[in-house]
Amino acid sequence: MVTVDLNSDLGESFGPWPMGDDVAMLDIVTSANIACGFHAGDPAGILKVLRAAAARGVMVGAHVGYRDLVGFGRRNMDPSSEELVGDTIYQIGALQGLAKAAGTKVRYVKPHGALYNTISNDARQAGDVIAGIKAIDPSLILMALAGAPIVKRARAAGLTVVCEAFADRAYNADGTLVSRRAPGAVIHDPDQVAERMLRLVGEGRIATIDGDDIELEAQTICVHGDTPTAVALAQRLREVFTGRGIRLAAFADVTDGAVRG
Amino acid sequence: MVTVDLNSDLGESFGPWPMGDDVAMLDIVTSANIACGFHAGDPAGILKVLRAAAARGVMVGAHVGYRDLVGFGRRNMDPSSEELVGDTIYQIGALQGLAKAAGTKVRYVKPHGALYNTISNDARQAGDVIAGIKAIDPSLILMALAGAPIVKRARAAGLTVVCEAFADRAYNADGTLVSRRAPGAVIHDPDQVAERMLRLVGEGRIATIDGDDIELEAQTICVHGDTPTAVALAQRLREVFTGRGIRLAAFADVTDGAVRG
Amino acid sequence: MVTVDLNSDLGESFGPWPMGDDVAMLDIVTSANIACGFHAGDPAGILKVLRAAAARGVMVGAHVGYRDLVGFGRRNMDPSSEELVGDTIYQIGALQGLAKAAGTKVRYVKPHGALYNTISNDARQAGDVIAGIKAIDPSLILMALAGAPIVKRARAAGLTVVCEAFADRAYNADGTLVSRRAPGAVIHDPDQVAERMLRLVGEGRIATIDGDDIELEAQTICVHGDTPTAVALAQRLREVFTGRGIRLAAFADVTDGAVRG
Amino acid sequence: MVTVDLNSDLGESFGPWPMGDDVAMLDIVTSANIACGFHAGDPAGILKVLRAAAARGVMVGAHVGYRDLVGFGRRNMDPSSEELVGDTIYQIGALQGLAKAAGTKVRYVKPHGALYNTISNDARQAGDVIAGIKAIDPSLILMALAGAPIVKRARAAGLTVVCEAFADRAYNADGTLVSRRAPGAVIHDPDQVAERMLRLVGEGRIATIDGDDIELEAQTICVHGDTPTAVALAQRLREVFTGRGIRLAAFADVTDGAVRG
Repeated sequence: MVTVDLNSDLGESFGPWPMGDDVAMLDIVTSANIACGFHAGDPAGILKVLRAAAARGVMVGAHVGYRDLVGFGRRNMDPSSEELVGDTIYQIGALQGLAKAAGTKVRYVKPHGALYNTISNDARQAGDVIAGIKAIDPSLILMALAGAPIVKRARAAGLTVVCEAFADRAYNADGTLVSRRAPGAVIHDPDQVAERMLRLVGEGRIATIDGDDIELEAQTICVHGDTPTAVALAQRLREVFTGRGIRLAAFADVTDGAVRG
Repeated sequence: MVTVDLNSDLGESFGPWPMGDDVAMLDIVTSANIACGFHAGDPAGILKVLRAAAARGVMVGAHVGYRDLVGFGRRNMDPSSEELVGDTIYQIGALQGLAKAAGTKVRYVKPHGALYNTISNDARQAGDVIAGIKAIDPSLILMALAGAPIVKRARAAGLTVVCEAFADRAYNADGTLVSRRAPGAVIHDPDQVAERMLRLVGEGRIATIDGDDIELEAQTICVHGDTPTAVALAQRLREVFTGRGIRLAAFADVTDGAVRG
Repeated sequence: MVTVDLNSDLGESFGPWPMGDDVAMLDIVTSANIACGFHAGDPAGILKVLRAAAARGVMVGAHVGYRDLVGFGRRNMDPSSEELVGDTIYQIGALQGLAKAAGTKVRYVKPHGALYNTISNDARQAGDVIAGIKAIDPSLILMALAGAPIVKRARAAGLTVVCEAFADRAYNADGTLVSRRAPGAVIHDPDQVAERMLRLVGEGRIATIDGDDIELEAQTICVHGDTPTAVALAQRLREVFTGRGIRLAAFADVTDGAVRG
Repeated sequence: MVTVDLNSDLGESFGPWPMGDDVAMLDIVTSANIACGFHAGDPAGILKVLRAAAARGVMVGAHVGYRDLVGFGRRNMDPSSEELVGDTIYQIGALQGLAKAAGTKVRYVKPHGALYNTISNDARQAGDVIAGIKAIDPSLILMALAGAPIVKRARAAGLTVVCEAFADRAYNADGTLVSRRAPGAVIHDPDQVAERMLRLVGEGRIATIDGDDIELEAQTICVHGDTPTAVALAQRLREVFTGRGIRLAAFADVTDGAVRG
């Protein structure tokens, strides 16, 4: 039986400002990337979403980002290695503490936004994030862009890596994502999204924006939850998968709670 | 043989701005209250001081504060209980992560500045900090103002509490500190400071600013390290104590390193 | 002909997090309290709402607050006088700069949240805010809680003061607002809100929560815009006022744009 | 008679953390680049240094930077144009407000750190900063790296530009600064620094690190003040200049105070 994980970015509210419908998404996904306070998320809000995840047996990961609230971690930055190693450990540790208070456990790390994009290719910053993860807990799994150089780098450094595809994004022939600024970067048709992901999960292949067809290894699929449309798309994807006999499950055991089936 | 702990606030640099001489103080004290990023401290700098503490076998604690960098956590605030519980857990967790990376372990919590003063008496905020500590790790020791209501509250809630006296501060008849704004609040004469602390450790008594004499239970003494004079005073106190046969030692075992003798 | 001003808090988005429907509110109100970056608002977003206000001839004021983003300026704080004077000037200056770039001008100052409440009564912090306003521009008008001690204080200090009532809030017999935590603090029925405000504007009187009836001087009425219901209530109030021959107009001339009629 | 301006970065303390000896430097320089709160500086501290500058007739400029306190604005960032335009106006406006309160006036803008370096060459970010300056006050002078593309760009856009040389930095053959990471980047010998600056001011020429000799137009020279050595170097330069008959003066009139002679 084929199994796949659905993940989404959650806990991204900040103080008085809500973002997304975390509870709705927690009823859909099998793993939750939880903001750690640097690009989004405040402790009280993070704790709340961690408790909701624990109650539903949804696995949680640390969604670490650049220290840039106003830019939501989406702006490129060049922290020194000392800074990036420290920032990585700090954010993971903070989330581990909140997760423990919520009765769950951080099982993986998924960098966010500009940091995610940068370390997909940049050796120096990738090395810093990997070093930070290993320094706090080498058993943490790294969630990384399927096909990107980071995957091999992190595995060579001894980390377990889970490869991620994006449900509604177009792909270039080299396996990279089409830039959001380019036409056709985001696929809005739910049927098309579902068909693409079914084929990816079943055959390990996906059509590129140029009409080619490439191999892509992906154990987890990212769905967004920041708009009602996004939640509906995620729900749709879940239904299509389960309807076709694909099992949705977290890629690692969830402590203190059953894994969502 | 009489034993006492010397503690100091460290790791309070921020980005390009240094504060205090952490390395000099780590050669003097037996426990180090490390800033957690809310009132001071950035991850890279915190990691550095944690490594220096681990190398010297100095025990480390989480110096949690209000989220107020520009005010250095010295301004009163009224966070909600949800916020204060979350902020407490977040800061401790972040420091635990960095401590693990540095090869040591957070053994206690000492709130900072305005938070320290407020929870000494305020039941609501004290309860929030206690709840936060218990939620992340009930074996963490709370360092609290000797004689203040927080001591009984935290013990009643099941926490181990270590009582703290301040080396260079004058005391009121009710055991509270004389406000910094009042004349005579800070004692500058090293001989007088040393005599007062020797008597406190040996007899459990201290003279008040009004000429009275009160009992005070104190297992740890706070020394400051933010000026050369302060470092010299701390060094002096260490020498006087050891010269009189008082053993300086952390009040709990230090993981991954010998306890300073 | 009776004239009154309608004001609302705008520009309170922050980075990726929206708040309220600023454009809808700008079509309703006659003056806009614009966040200055300390409790909410980022420069690019503030600039955008200032341009929209300028395009509609809506007067703008500086909505200065405590430096507390995550707490949205709603938590009590005790900045020193130096800090509060400086923070007041800084925020007003920043908004003046953005207003100039948007082709309009800051005409008044309305403190926000906890700062607003504190200075209504607290002489020290009130004095600091007044000193800050006078230091940057003594011709700035202060918008303050009708009936509160701040009104006399600011007038005695030489500032022009405009008194503010709250459309949907219940009043105590001494003219203070019923605390949000008390039952009946917020009035949800649009008809009741409209009737109360009509009477306030027409007769200068308002019924208290205890059934008494008090005098209240108010030149401006605050309406909220952070929910669709709030926008609808504001729109309703505007219609009722104009239907009864009450003229809605800013309480001072708007530079570089016609005053809304 | 030859005239030159000496400038320095001041007001870079933050909350409890001091930086540099602002008062000592204000007795040496003729213009002061004052931090605006984004890379350094808090309102109360900025106000204090502005008053000290006003008292000495030292001209003040806005030292605008990226919004990155912990990185001190020294890390590259890629804000959007909307963000960078807004951030530029916000910071200048805030400083204008504080300057007015201090009895002086912002006469120029000198970007800081990574922003300074980036806009020296990068057309997009340069355009954003120029647009921000023009939007708030087109009479503000831009202080920019002598010989860099920004100089022509800003002049073409209608701004007055003052070209800046760095007293203790080595130059490449193309007029750019030798990277701080390269050997020989910083010149420590006070005599050598003085000789180089005398020649630059007198002949408009400077020796490069490769032994070449290039033309460089510079109306102002940057001296640092963050260490006692730096202050001494600045003082030395002032003495050498005045001893050789070079007049030190701000490059524009200082409002509400005599220009330093």
